[in-house]
Amino acid sequence: MPINQQIVLDNRPVGDAVASNFKLLSSPTPELKDGEVLVKHHYLSLDPYMRGRMNDSKSYAAAQALGEVMIGGTVGEVVATKSAKYAVGDKVVGMGGWQEYGVASDSVMGMLRKVDTAHIPLSAYLGAVGMPGVTAWYGLMKICNPKAGETVCVTAASGAVGSAVGVLAKARGCRVVGIAGGKDKCDYVVNVLGFDACIDYKEHTDGKALNKALKEAAPNGIDCYFENVGGWIMDTVLLRMNAFGRMAICGMIAGYNGAPLPLANPALILVNRLKIEGFIVSEHMEVWPEALKELGTLVATKKLNVRESIAEGIAAAPEAFLGLLKGKNFGKQLVKLV
Amino acid sequence: MPINQQIVLDNRPVGDAVASNFKLLSSPTPELKDGEVLVKHHYLSLDPYMRGRMNDSKSYAAAQALGEVMIGGTVGEVVATKSAKYAVGDKVVGMGGWQEYGVASDSVMGMLRKVDTAHIPLSAYLGAVGMPGVTAWYGLMKICNPKAGETVCVTAASGAVGSAVGVLAKARGCRVVGIAGGKDKCDYVVNVLGFDACIDYKEHTDGKALNKALKEAAPNGIDCYFENVGGWIMDTVLLRMNAFGRMAICGMIAGYNGAPLPLANPALILVNRLKIEGFIVSEHMEVWPEALKELGTLVATKKLNVRESIAEGIAAAPEAFLGLLKGKNFGKQLVKLV
Repeated sequence: MPINQQIVLDNRPVGDAVASNFKLLSSPTPELKDGEVLVKHHYLSLDPYMRGRMNDSKSYAAAQALGEVMIGGTVGEVVATKSAKYAVGDKVVGMGGWQEYGVASDSVMGMLRKVDTAHIPLSAYLGAVGMPGVTAWYGLMKICNPKAGETVCVTAASGAVGSAVGVLAKARGCRVVGIAGGKDKCDYVVNVLGFDACIDYKEHTDGKALNKALKEAAPNGIDCYFENVGGWIMDTVLLRMNAFGRMAICGMIAGYNGAPLPLANPALILVNRLKIEGFIVSEHMEVWPEALKELGTLVATKKLNVRESIAEGIAAAPEAFLGLLKGKNFGKQLVKLV
Repeated sequence: MPINQQIVLDNRPVGDAVASNFKLLSSPTPELKDGEVLVKHHYLSLDPYMRGRMNDSKSYAAAQALGEVMIGGTVGEVVATKSAKYAVGDKVVGMGGWQEYGVASDSVMGMLRKVDTAHIPLSAYLGAVGMPGVTAWYGLMKICNPKAGETVCVTAASGAVGSAVGVLAKARGCRVVGIAGGKDKCDYVVNVLGFDACIDYKEHTDGKALNKALKEAAPNGIDCYFENVGGWIMDTVLLRMNAFGRMAICGMIAGYNGAPLPLANPALILVNRLKIEGFIVSEHMEVWPEALKELGTLVATKKLNVRESIAEGIAAAPEAFLGLLKGKNFGKQLVKLV
């Protein structure tokens, strides 16, 4: 039995999450039961939603149990099988968690999915052709529903979700304005992803400066807003929303450590007859096939080039995750395990 | 020519609106041109949206011009006509403004509508069978879309809009919880309108007390919220919203004087995957026939008994309006002009 290194949640954060909330354990992989497969993980996905799971408070998902392996998306290769549905060597995507090996049962729908790596790199199934990509697709198509010529704004624009939002919106003939932290990220958003403009919130550090920059980048106002961060940036974008604007609320990373995150001017929802909707992509599995088809084509044809930040080895996962929460990653944050 | 007393906006409010923002003028009614009718107003409607028009700021409607007759809905009787479409004696509803007589042209679509007063009192066309009623219908049906068994909460529950929201929701098999200011209003909401419960915000004067009262009145949480007031009441209701809840934002009267009105916890939009939408009923004329049909039936069959607060004479309009903004009215606020 190979030895499996795992990261469990040892204790819950008080305020900011810290490295000591996690603990590294190791144990042999278990004997497989009938219908099970053993997957050697190649990559672990790190995503902001995991921060919410670390709290023991009411959220959209059950809290992560203490002492259990942290939840997380994984891609890898089947290395042992007692299932007729999977062969050794199959490349698969699943929710294997923060560990080197995962055991999955073929009787649980959707837990493990075979993927084609001929045209799409394996790691993309954790990003543009996975949960982040479908998140972008759902929020943009089902909530924002932008028309050609409208202006779409997205925060965390260089991230896995934001990148896909922008490329999908450009494909629909929209003007696309990103907001990201740092010149490098903004350059990538404009030059590689093809956004029309990107505003560096580290250069425009208050509402007044950001408002001015948004006026220039979105001279016709903003029709659609895809929100990943919340806080003062959301307040400022709200000032620039056009009548009948739509806002897809995907994340509010600014408030994940428990700090108060009031919205300054909700009256604008009425004044501008806005539609605002929060969503979680895992509750909309019905769109996955349609979304993955478009996203897969965009990736295979190199129109959607999601940057990756890659940490090495399972022991590096906690620090990489804490960095993600602070925006230290550049693009999709992964942990390489092989 | 009869003398027409009119109230114009003399100057704009700084903070709270005050009586000296208005001025009473009088002049003879003008000579009618071809296609025009002269309407003697029986009732003027006073509505919270008028406060927004008094400001010179960006809002959903053009600001009320200084020196012009205040905008407002009216019902009355045709007393002179140069139109083949209207006869003297016709009862009509229109937007005649804060004045005793109005001139309307029959070439402007929707400016004047003949109404049947055999089964429905004339004043109801300014309330349950008029703009407030259709406002309730649109927000409830097109945004909240409640299912039987769900819980609907509405603020300003004894007002013209709130009354209709509750009765329409009860007709759809919902549990209906009102929020209103004072025991008299709450008694009326429960005993006359038939709400399941009504919470007096003057008895429960902070978020903690209101939250507790809401827990008791809505033990299964709140699925639909029809918002007329904003502020701390909205913050508190938000805490009690169920997953996939819908919020129709119709008014935020608490912020109409320009005071900051932040929303404490917008992250709940994401946590509970809420849908929030602001709307103005005048932008949805397509629903009026369907809405008025149901509302007219509810009024004619006495199932929707909207209370009326009636001020006497056009000179009383400003004080009645200022009282409305402070919740001093009980039900639909009208000014009787004949």
